[in-house]
Parts: sequence; C-alpha cells; structure tokens
Amino acid sequence: MEHHVKSWAEVAPHLVAVTAGRAPADLVITGGRLVSVQTREVLDGWQVAIAEGRFAYVGPDASHCVGPETEVLDANGCYLIPGLCDGHMHIESGMLTPAEFAAAVIPHGTTTMFTDPHEIANVLGLDGVRMMHDEALMQPINIYTQMPSCAPSAPGLETTGFEISAADVKEAMGWPGIIGLGEMMNFPGVINGDPQMLAEMAATMNADKTVGGHYASPDKGVAFSAYVAGGAADDHEGTAEADALARVRNGMRSMMRLGSAWYDVESQITAVTEKGLDPRNFILCTDDCHSGTLVNDGHMNRVVRHAIDCGCDPLVALQMATINTATHFGLERELGSIAPGRRADMILTSDLTALPIGQVIARGRTVAIDGALRADCPHYDWPKTARGTIHLGKELATTDFEVAAPEGAKSATVKVIGVVENQAPTKALTADLPVVDEVIQGQGDVCQIALVERHRATGDVVNGFVSGFGYQGRMAMASTVAHDSHHMIVVGTDRDMMATAANRLGEVGGGVTVWKDGAELALVELPIGGLMSDQPAAEVAAKADQMVKAMEACGCTLNNAYMQHSLLALVVIPELRISDLGLVDVTKFELTELIETQE
Amino acid sequence: MEHHVKSWAEVAPHLVAVTAGRAPADLVITGGRLVSVQTREVLDGWQVAIAEGRFAYVGPDASHCVGPETEVLDANGCYLIPGLCDGHMHIESGMLTPAEFAAAVIPHGTTTMFTDPHEIANVLGLDGVRMMHDEALMQPINIYTQMPSCAPSAPGLETTGFEISAADVKEAMGWPGIIGLGEMMNFPGVINGDPQMLAEMAATMNADKTVGGHYASPDKGVAFSAYVAGGAADDHEGTAEADALARVRNGMRSMMRLGSAWYDVESQITAVTEKGLDPRNFILCTDDCHSGTLVNDGHMNRVVRHAIDCGCDPLVALQMATINTATHFGLERELGSIAPGRRADMILTSDLTALPIGQVIARGRTVAIDGALRADCPHYDWPKTARGTIHLGKELATTDFEVAAPEGAKSATVKVIGVVENQAPTKALTADLPVVDEVIQGQGDVCQIALVERHRATGDVVNGFVSGFGYQGRMAMASTVAHDSHHMIVVGTDRDMMATAANRLGEVGGGVTVWKDGAELALVELPIGGLMSDQPAAEVAAKADQMVKAMEACGCTLNNAYMQHSLLALVVIPELRISDLGLVDVTKFELTELIETQE
Repeated sequence: MEHHVKSWAEVAPHLVAVTAGRAPADLVITGGRLVSVQTREVLDGWQVAIAEGRFAYVGPDASHCVGPETEVLDANGCYLIPGLCDGHMHIESGMLTPAEFAAAVIPHGTTTMFTDPHEIANVLGLDGVRMMHDEALMQPINIYTQMPSCAPSAPGLETTGFEISAADVKEAMGWPGIIGLGEMMNFPGVINGDPQMLAEMAATMNADKTVGGHYASPDKGVAFSAYVAGGAADDHEGTAEADALARVRNGMRSMMRLGSAWYDVESQITAVTEKGLDPRNFILCTDDCHSGTLVNDGHMNRVVRHAIDCGCDPLVALQMATINTATHFGLERELGSIAPGRRADMILTSDLTALPIGQVIARGRTVAIDGALRADCPHYDWPKTARGTIHLGKELATTDFEVAAPEGAKSATVKVIGVVENQAPTKALTADLPVVDEVIQGQGDVCQIALVERHRATGDVVNGFVSGFGYQGRMAMASTVAHDSHHMIVVGTDRDMMATAANRLGEVGGGVTVWKDGAELALVELPIGGLMSDQPAAEVAAKADQMVKAMEACGCTLNNAYMQHSLLALVVIPELRISDLGLVDVTKFELTELIETQE
Repeated sequence: MEHHVKSWAEVAPHLVAVTAGRAPADLVITGGRLVSVQTREVLDGWQVAIAEGRFAYVGPDASHCVGPETEVLDANGCYLIPGLCDGHMHIESGMLTPAEFAAAVIPHGTTTMFTDPHEIANVLGLDGVRMMHDEALMQPINIYTQMPSCAPSAPGLETTGFEISAADVKEAMGWPGIIGLGEMMNFPGVINGDPQMLAEMAATMNADKTVGGHYASPDKGVAFSAYVAGGAADDHEGTAEADALARVRNGMRSMMRLGSAWYDVESQITAVTEKGLDPRNFILCTDDCHSGTLVNDGHMNRVVRHAIDCGCDPLVALQMATINTATHFGLERELGSIAPGRRADMILTSDLTALPIGQVIARGRTVAIDGALRADCPHYDWPKTARGTIHLGKELATTDFEVAAPEGAKSATVKVIGVVENQAPTKALTADLPVVDEVIQGQGDVCQIALVERHRATGDVVNGFVSGFGYQGRMAMASTVAHDSHHMIVVGTDRDMMATAANRLGEVGGGVTVWKDGAELALVELPIGGLMSDQPAAEVAAKADQMVKAMEACGCTLNNAYMQHSLLALVVIPELRISDLGLVDVTKFELTELIETQE
C-alpha cells in the first residue's frame, strides 16, 4: 500500500522522453494560468504535462506531450498553484492519525507537511516516532517527519513513557522520511551548552538536515543569539514583528503560525508588508490544528488566505507556503513549485485571494475535487503496544483523589493553578480551603486536579487544586492528552466522579471523557497512544464538539477549555503546573509543596 | 598546510559559549554598517563577533564577547558585506593554479568559488580533477569543485588525454570538496536520453548535489524543456532577457556572467530591474577570467559593480553574489550571509555602489587589506604526471605541416576555418589555394593551422587552413591550451616556424609561444597540464600581455586573438573546427574532408 515516490534521477529517462515529445504524458493541463513562485508572476495560458508523478513539461504549449492515453484536463481559466506546504506542525494535535489527518487536509490543498511527532515520542519513544513516520510515508501526499528532540521536555520535573536520546536522533536521521530535528524546545539547555541538546543538533547537522527551533522567550538579546549559534534554523514561537525581524536578521527562517489557537501571522507579517523585507525567509505554518478547525475552517489554505487578509501580496503569501518552505528543508528541487522534475503537487483555484480549493493534484494524481477527498489514505497496522498505552496499575478509587489535611487542621492554605482565559501561562495562586474528615475540599471555583500516572502502571496519583474553569455541581473531566508527558489529567469537583472518569479512560484505552452527576456526557476515544483516533476527522470533530458542550454543561466558561485542560501538566510554561512527580513551580523549574507551610 | 574547516556542529559548543559571553571571541568588529542579505537591508551599528572561523554573535552590541585576547576592529563606518561568491567558473581560464588564482582574487573580495576543472579533466582525467580539488581545499577561501561532466565534449570527434565516465562522477561525489556536477554541455545528449549523461546526472542527484547546466542554444522550446527535465539546476549560457526568463520560469537558476570575454549580465538583468521578477533565482558568475582581468579589473567585485551599473539595486546585486549562490548549492547555512554559525567571510567596503574592497576576512582571518594579499595560498605538490603532459612522440619537422595537393593539381579548393571578430562560432569558408611542389600553400589572410596530438605521443599532426587573424610575414603561434581536448594548436604562415614553435612547447612542458622570423617573441610557460602556471597572476598576466603584443607584431588585428586561437579545436561550437581526428563540421557533428572533391 505504500506510495513509493521514485526519485527524479530514477525517472529522468522517461521524463525527458515525455518532455521531448517521444513518449506520452499521463496528464496534461490546459487552459490555466500558471503561478510561478520562482519568479512571482502569473503566466497566462501556460500548460503543464505530468509523467511519473512529476512535472515534465511546463510552458506555453504541451500538445506534443499528448498521446492517446493522456488525460487532458481543461483548467477553465483557473490558476495553477503549487500544493501548499505546512512548515511545522504536530499531527497529534488533530487527535488524528497521519492517515486521517492527511484525509482531512488534502481537500484543503495541503500536499506537504513537516510534522514533529513529539507527543507520541513522549508516550512510545523512538518506536512511536517510527510508527508515525511509517504511516506518514504511506500517504498520497508528502509528510516529512521531524525527529522529536525533547522528550522529556523538562528532565527531572516529569517522567515520560520513553525518553529520546542523542543516539535515537542519530539513528532516526537515517530513516527515509526524516527531514530534520523537531523543534529544539530546550532553549535554556542550548544556551547553557547542554551536551545532549548540542549532540542532537550535531547529529542532525552532520546528516545535512534541518534543525527546527523553538525559542519561546521575548528576550531577543544575548540569550537569543546564543540559541541561534547552536544551530536552530527556524523558529515559530515569534509573536511580534520584532521577533520576526530578530530571527531573519540572525539567519533563521521565521515561521509564522496560524493554528487553531495560534494567531501569530498578523503581528509578524508586517515585517514584509510594511517594512518591505525580502520575503524569502518567511514561512507559514499551523503548528497545531484541532480536528474541528480542519473540518470547518481549513488548513494551510486558511493560513494563506489569512496572510492575504493581513495585506500580503497573494503571490508572496503563496511563496511563504510553497517555495520558501521547500527551500528551507533543502527540497526546492523536489517540490514547492511547478517546474520540470518536481513532484506534480498542484491546486486549481479560481481566485488567488479567496483561494477556493478546486482540484488538488498530488504526485500527478487527482486527490481531491471541490472539497471531496478522491484518494486512499492507508492506515498503518498499529500494534498492541500503540493501542494499549493506558497503564493504570489498578482501579482508581475515590480515596486516591483525597488530599490529606495537616493533622488537626480545620482549613488549609494550598497552592492553586490559576488558569487564565486565552493564555497558556497559568498563575500561581493560593486559596484557604476547608477541611472535612481530614481531607481538604475544593470550594467555589477552586476544584481538584489530579495527575494519574499512566505509562508505568505505578498507580501513582498526584493531587492538587485548580481554578478558572468555572465548574459547578458534581463533575469530572479526564484526558490522556496531557502535554508533554501525556499522563492523565483529571479535573473535577467530585472525587467519585474523578475516579470514574479515570477508570473509564483506562477501559477505552485513552481519550477524553466528561462526567456529570454520575453520567458520561461525552467521550472522545483516542486509542492510539491515548492521543489519536483512527476515525475520520469529521467524527472526531463531532465528538470533540460534544466534549466542549459537555464541559459547558458542567459550568465551564473558558474559551479553549480543552486546551487549557490538556496543558495543565506542561511543566515548561510558567507559573504553576502538575506532573507525575508533584506540583511544579515553573518560574523556578523546581518541585514545590502543595500545602503552604504554616508561618 | 591544509586549511581544515571545522563544521558548525563541531564548533557549536564553543560558538554558543562565545555568543553567550562565557568565552571570548577571536575578533569583534564594531563601528560598521551590516548588510543583511537575508532581509535586504542595512543594519547601522550592528556588530559582529567571530570565533572558530565562524560568526558567533551578530547584533547591536558585541561587547560581551570581548576578552583580553580578543582583537577589536573598528570598521570606521564601513559596510560589512558577505564575501563574494563566484557561482560558476574555470580556474584554468586564468592560466593559474588554484593557489595562484586564489591569491589573485582574494584581494578583490572573492571568498567562495564554484569551479569546474573541466580543462584538466581532458588532459589528466579524474586524477587531474583530484589534484585541482586537493589544491582548492588547501586555500584560505572556499573553493568547491564541480565534477567535470563532459570529457570528451564531443565523443567520436576528438580524443582527449583521458575520459570522464559515469563511474568517475559517482566516485567523485564522495570527495569532500565536490559540490556537484560541472556544466552538462552535452545538451543534445540529455535531450536524446544519452545513458551516460543521464547516469552522471543521476549520480549527482543521488548524492544530493547540484547538477550544473550549460544549454548553449537559442531554442527555448521543447528541446530546452527536455534538457531541464533531465536535471540541470542552473545555466549560465543565457545571453538575452528571454533566456533568463525561460530558465527561472522552468525552475532553474539563471547564472549571469561577466567574464573576460563574456558580457551577459546587462542583457539579462532586466528580468529583475525592469520586469521586476523575484531576484532570488539569479546568480552572478564569471565563467572565465584571464589573469589580466584579475590583475587589472577585478573578479566578482567587477561583476557586482557592473550589475549595479546596469541599474540593479546594490543590495539585490550583492544577494546575487552571496546568499543566492549559497542557497543554490545547499550552503545557505554555511556561507553567503553574515549570521551566526556561517563561515566568517566578510568584506569591509566604504561604498555599496563603487564597492571598493577594503579589508577582506575569510573564515575569521584577515586575508587582504586594500588590495594586498595577507594570506598564504599553499601550493599542491604537482606530480610529474601533471608537469609533463606534452607527449609529442617525436621532434616535429617542417614536413609534418605540409598539406599534399591532389596529384598533379596546380591549385586546390580547401575548407577554411573562418575566425569571426568577437564571436565564438567560426564560419566554414572555402579558398582556392596555390600548389607548390605538390604542397598546398597558404595565401593572403589564409594561413595554416595544425593540430598536434600531445596526449598519447602518436606524432600525429592534422593540418588545415584558417583565416581572419591577419598574420603576415613568416610567423607561427602554438598553444597547448586548445579547448576542450587540449592538444596543441599551431597557427602559422611558415611551416619551419610552426615546427619550431611546436617543438618549443614540447621542450618547456606546454604553454603558448609566438615566433616571427626565427625568433621567439613571447612565451607563456604553462607547465601544469600544459594549461596552468604556478607563478603569480601578475607575472602570468605580464607574459600573456607580451604574447598579445607578439601576435599584433605578427599582424594580428583581432580582439581576443588568443581566445580565438585556443578555441579553434572546440568541436562543439559551429561551424568548422579542427581536432586530432581531422576537420570537423560542427553543423553536422561529423568529420569532413579538408580538400573539396572535384565536381
């Protein structure tokens, strides 16, 4: 079932014969307006001949390439644009397997993705990365894998299912679909010369591949420069024009993202649209898209449209999602433009601004027409190790979620993770909570949070308190999507329900579940790694939608409440988080006590 | 003596420490105006810190990188621009070894060259390429070798010293300094699917390296497209705007050349300056420079200045000689811009339009100041096989240059190679010549030409006639630079003198010699392969100057007379040429008779 892509060199003899008119093309497209992202111009009437999944002839008249068996397609005045490339993204964010993610984005014109399977690396290590990589290579579009660099994200502060070593990185660089190193998030490590981080980057650079960056700090001074000197070639964490400027002036490529919850294009693209900088070093990407976004709004077509809405010239915006990306990853001779020898990845669109996606062609085959998928996206045969990753070690009981009060106390002052609307950082709050039967009780908007260990079946539960969701009544929500180590996060107002929700996820092999008054309001099953469904995006999106509604039914008032939930264990973003090792003060990168000591 | 360049990955730990301020830089430059070719802007006051031969810190204030041992250089308001790159060139054209070529161009600000040792490949084969490659790697600047693709240039029409096979190409792709395949000149072969040409390109592409192009035809239709489909990634044979457009629209990079005798920038750069195309796919190069040009006019600085004179924005012109070139060869993370991690190749110039070359820094070391070389350019120990390549097999006699007339004829109609002022193509002329003692005699402007075999000591001499030089009196000129097979070309009005000149080159090991009335007027000794001197450029240029004066003293009235002489055996350019196998009709690619048969 694997879609083997023959190299240009391999097919050159036949390709030359087709281009020269000695052999017929498989497909010829006439009547279009070709967008040259190499020259940034529209070539009216230029025709295209395709053979061996690659462009053979591109020019004013392809009639010499037409034989009796050649399919001739009239573009009816449509623009022919290169298939869109997503410069950096995580497939797991869609809660979909690579196959189902591909099936969802192909009708939106995405024909190439650079994907970092960072989440599954935390759950299944190098083996999990290989499975994602293998399914990626089975798809009819180009899915290149960036080898995850940082699992765990915060060594010493959390325990992942598996860890990624420099030796793993070196090994992965030899795999056929590996394009480089996934975002190097441990920027303090790089700046301080951490040997493992430098070894991972060295393994990547020695393999002539691209080191992905992730510099999530507003400091654009010496620390930033030191990070760049380590070797990261791009960065998608910029949020302001000055961030983009610092990156391209330092020889990185600035990746500007529009994800389901990232809005970093508008604030940075002014570097091109207003400051007039050479656009070649700017790239568009999504980073993270939920299945709902894919089903309802689009993928890279949404990002390009948005860039155009922000005042970017449509041809420049297209360059940022095609040739710029291809060049960045050393693939400019392979894809990203409509020119002889490149993979025949192309979209027919009637309008360069609104960018409606008509016919999508990938490797010379029609893969979607007017939003409908026309290709097979084969599934990998995920083994038991990938489908059975929720190792709880025991049936959880109500008592597992009790926080014992100091002896004899009638109330207790505890640290509370304060969720902030529309922000990833949390606040480190405190609350005085009542004690009943020697157990500290949530109160008002302060409810309980628990991190349930699920990789090694230790049966460990770490308890804490969280505020900001607005939950009311008797409820609990549990999720095995719990960045980045992906244990299980349970949030609830009721310990019975918390235990029930946790056990439910153990039973179904992972996912998200919402319980209220003893009933399950929503369940998103994510059996693969506890992270992904192998159901189609529309089904997953519908279930996710139901999940959001269920959270609202429990009183939740937050935007992106599910994201907030799943980030509560992300021990690299301030201020207060929870991990399997305890409560983490991320301003100090150290474990901290839940109960404030008496003065 | 080799200048080993440590990789970025290798030096990253120290580089990060310097950038972060934990270790001192080797060199810090303050008071400059940094030209960012990534963004196409000038960053006033930006400073640069260098360590391990690479840029460490680039930004507004490098004072944290200064230690007690750090050299601090005040740029005095000069612009800091990246060292210039020559995108395609032949070192042998300078009649200099790589070391002496480097010594000549470093003061002009050239810090990177992509060089195709095509001439020595014809004389010494793969071994000769390796010697050039090895001397190139010994230099303090970056000299990447493009593996020659076409030796012989015209199989079946000439015999070279050695031939290059697809297996040779494959082997060379593993050498450290090989960057790709040298210009694929056999464009009819590619278009017709010649297996050897496709195999050479496949070996290059499979090694992820760049296939250089050479499409020397005005036909931009199907034949051109078929050539592109074969895999050539660039082309420097364009001479008109339409040529440049065809190349970039087909996904190639257009290399625009200004050599000693090439003037193809002005006619093509309008694609950018007037048509407004994205300039990223345009590259400047020299292709061929004589030593005199290097001594008197410059190198890539001359080309950039010329592009600016043609109306190109200076920053765009600089991009065409720095980052565009680096990106083309997959080296954008290694050189071509002033950014952390890149080789510290840089020029200080006081003016971005006139481009005076002040201080030149390569790999962090000052290599020239105000036109004076300040670096060592080590010589390779050229072996006897390279220094003794003139194998005549016998002492040549006057009779070797006699053309026997048809029996009993008093005159004969012969084909004559008609040299045309300022053009590479010749005309196929005829002349009725007198016969004396059964030997055909030159007359008027028609003098004799002979190709003397010098690779295999066969003693063979092929005789013919040539016109257009304007030679008078008793003279002869001989040269072992005789593109592309580099036998010996002797042109003369006197057979005694022709034999003397030929024997003289055998005696000195190759070069160029001019004789008049029994005396040698000029001698340029080119002992290495009969192509190159290992003397400094100024000395070679002076001798070459004397040679031109000697040709004038013999009555020659042509511009570039030496070039015309050395191209008379170039059996790939129409219309009539000479080779060791006979007279060649290049319009038909076949051997032809010298003496016209009687009707």
